[in-house]
Amino acid sequence: MIDLRPVLFVIGVLLSVLAVAMIVPALVDIVLGHIDWQVFLASAAVTLFVGVSLILSTRTGWGGFNLRQAFLMTTFAWATIALFGALPFAFSELQLDFTDAFFEAMSGVTTTGATVIVGLDNAPPGILLWRAALQWLGGIGIIVMAISILPILQVGGMQLFRVEAFEADKVLPRAAQVAAGITGIYVALTTLGAIVYWMLGMTGFDAISHAMTSIATGGYSTHDASFGFWHETPAIHWATSVVMVAGSVPFVLYLRAVRGDILSLLRDSQVQWMLSILAGATLIVAAYLVAREVLTPEAALRHGTFNVISVMTGTGYASTDFGAWGGFAVVLMLILMFIGGCAGSTTCGIKIFRFQIVYAEARVQLRRLMQPNGVFIPYYNHRPIPDKVAQAVMGFFFVYTLSWAVLALGLGLMGLDFITAISGAATAISNVGPGLGPVIGPSGTFTSLPAEAKWLLSFGMLLGRLELFTVLVMFSPAFWRG
Amino acid sequence: MIDLRPVLFVIGVLLSVLAVAMIVPALVDIVLGHIDWQVFLASAAVTLFVGVSLILSTRTGWGGFNLRQAFLMTTFAWATIALFGALPFAFSELQLDFTDAFFEAMSGVTTTGATVIVGLDNAPPGILLWRAALQWLGGIGIIVMAISILPILQVGGMQLFRVEAFEADKVLPRAAQVAAGITGIYVALTTLGAIVYWMLGMTGFDAISHAMTSIATGGYSTHDASFGFWHETPAIHWATSVVMVAGSVPFVLYLRAVRGDILSLLRDSQVQWMLSILAGATLIVAAYLVAREVLTPEAALRHGTFNVISVMTGTGYASTDFGAWGGFAVVLMLILMFIGGCAGSTTCGIKIFRFQIVYAEARVQLRRLMQPNGVFIPYYNHRPIPDKVAQAVMGFFFVYTLSWAVLALGLGLMGLDFITAISGAATAISNVGPGLGPVIGPSGTFTSLPAEAKWLLSFGMLLGRLELFTVLVMFSPAFWRG
Repeated sequence: MIDLRPVLFVIGVLLSVLAVAMIVPALVDIVLGHIDWQVFLASAAVTLFVGVSLILSTRTGWGGFNLRQAFLMTTFAWATIALFGALPFAFSELQLDFTDAFFEAMSGVTTTGATVIVGLDNAPPGILLWRAALQWLGGIGIIVMAISILPILQVGGMQLFRVEAFEADKVLPRAAQVAAGITGIYVALTTLGAIVYWMLGMTGFDAISHAMTSIATGGYSTHDASFGFWHETPAIHWATSVVMVAGSVPFVLYLRAVRGDILSLLRDSQVQWMLSILAGATLIVAAYLVAREVLTPEAALRHGTFNVISVMTGTGYASTDFGAWGGFAVVLMLILMFIGGCAGSTTCGIKIFRFQIVYAEARVQLRRLMQPNGVFIPYYNHRPIPDKVAQAVMGFFFVYTLSWAVLALGLGLMGLDFITAISGAATAISNVGPGLGPVIGPSGTFTSLPAEAKWLLSFGMLLGRLELFTVLVMFSPAFWRG
Repeated sequence: MIDLRPVLFVIGVLLSVLAVAMIVPALVDIVLGHIDWQVFLASAAVTLFVGVSLILSTRTGWGGFNLRQAFLMTTFAWATIALFGALPFAFSELQLDFTDAFFEAMSGVTTTGATVIVGLDNAPPGILLWRAALQWLGGIGIIVMAISILPILQVGGMQLFRVEAFEADKVLPRAAQVAAGITGIYVALTTLGAIVYWMLGMTGFDAISHAMTSIATGGYSTHDASFGFWHETPAIHWATSVVMVAGSVPFVLYLRAVRGDILSLLRDSQVQWMLSILAGATLIVAAYLVAREVLTPEAALRHGTFNVISVMTGTGYASTDFGAWGGFAVVLMLILMFIGGCAGSTTCGIKIFRFQIVYAEARVQLRRLMQPNGVFIPYYNHRPIPDKVAQAVMGFFFVYTLSWAVLALGLGLMGLDFITAISGAATAISNVGPGLGPVIGPSGTFTSLPAEAKWLLSFGMLLGRLELFTVLVMFSPAFWRG
């Protein structure tokens, strides 16, 4: 038997934090005179009650975490937060059923951004803020987890980042200090983003909400038209593009930058690759849009930049319906969905460093084909790639593709059409937000999908957010035998 | 400088064989009184002239092959055969332009089966036979290559099959003997298939043509409706399903079976996996078709079996328009396209053994997650998988996905719609034949695509047929530096 006490204790602590976070939208609703403040207070009370009960009943009698407990804790913490985070959606005047409420909360906390709510422009302000808050909390949660827990779990080559963050980098040796420093930077960047948005013409409420979901590369908007709402303020599109990229770089590098090594961000090969891919994809899309005379050069460059960044980083905002840009752009967007940003940021997807590692491996293999007896060593960030990491990354790649295929098949079985099924599976597992096609594309929503498809997509979001193996390991009988 | 003489010499020999093969459709056209016999004779003369010239001008002054010459020889041999194999298409009364003729020949010799010819039922018999002959020659060509040259080139883990065929299996130690034995079995299976087809009601001509393209898992038919033509003869669908599977197992196992070890076929884990996947996919599709009331149980099982086998083995026949089976079936067909059959057979695609190896690796990684210090060894066919093979297979997987993505993007750029672009790229690289969607799906053809898309698809077919790396290695500057 696995001792569940430490698992439940941590979940209790996290639920208590979540309950406190619910007070904020309650206050906003009170100030704005909206009746939904009662919903948030009730949800906070329930969540706090469960959280504190868990803490009190499990606080003694255990020493630390073993590996299996860490896996359980990680997976169930995210699932539980989505469950309790759904309460305000279920109880509010939106009257979402339980499936929709859970989908919306899971999409929020995993920073996916797929939504089932139609009529955002008239939705209660507390609910809009709660959606943003879930993404914002999910964003900082994954950053801290990526440098603290995932390297210990060694899922998909994440051990690579234990070395960098906690050993080689002696600047801030203790994990708690690193976490506090990163949280500070996260808050600072969010504040900065909100101020810029506000100065460019957003209302204070919109500026705060969108700053939270931009830096978290989450993608929830307070308008049905997403950033199409500001089609007359191009500067907002440009500023948001910058904030999304800011959320996609390894946050541990900001710490170094703050301590004086300002160029460490640009020296990092993962960041260099990401910026190069973004620039390349943007220029190709812009050239394509101009050549096909879909948009003027200015609009092509702006919408190209915004939507390429939004999709590749997994944010999921849309400044216009890129689904209508033609076959090439749609195929490209599907591919970009899988790429993601840097490990150690708020983005999801396969992530840049894994592409660097498989590319390095593929290069070595090409050389080995020509000189079968030569010795070639693949490198990542100027260091040899350990065999175990290479294997883990390649395994991740395969399981990612497999999970996508199984999710798409499942969605097809539930009656979804081809493009909705394959893009829905991709957007869930990569935590992007909108899919492709008329139903779930940038101009659609997930509302009309059958309930079982929403549950499957919610599972896909959790799977993708926790780097697959953290969840999948629990389906192995050996895990439970111990 | 690379000495091209041995490369050109082998290509000369192969072209001479091709010229001799062109005599057969010439004779058929003479017997049936069709004017096109002149076309085949002229094509044969041109091909023989070039072939013999190459032989005579390069027959002396070189010792053997080095690795780079072997890569060049393999890639250029297939490209050249497609080029000269296109002559009859270009000169015949079909009046195909050069692009279409080359596409048809490349699709034939790579056993893809994608066609640009509309009106097969009224096409000249010599042309129909030539299409079948190209696939039949391509089929035996790839089998022999897979056990002789590819293991030496070590592309994508194919070295695994050098051990089995040429070292561990001492029954027929010499490569030439193995090749002759396999060719004999190939001829015997084709003959057997033709007799069965004829007994079940095909004309003699149709029986021979389809036996050749079934065993080669090629997919060219003599009717626009493909096997829908025999919709009133269910037995033909079942028999063809068996022949396609017969073409998808490692032919070296037939040799053992012939020498008395009859069960060696069923003991092979690659064969077991393939049959299990085929059975699983068929049952799911059949159940789906019955549940959705698309077909009767008998028709669902028959069409399910036939089309799942046809797509997964990369044959590309259709007994009905499976594109109209709904989202789930279309997603499943897209996934099956990539799988392929066994290495050492006539099939293309990623191939079963690679899935076995990545599965074994993924299992080991799951165990390693739970016991980070444990020692776990992945096995294939009861033997440990060498690290280099595992890396090569994983690299292959990645480059396969990448090639698919690049091809799909290219097709999108040429104006193809989303489903045509992504399924066209998949069907080309996996040598399946038809794609999905209204344009190139089982009820469409590739005729209407722009010329540049046909060239890109032809390149994709060559890439897939030669296990990617054999072609890609030539794009590396290091290859030419030597």
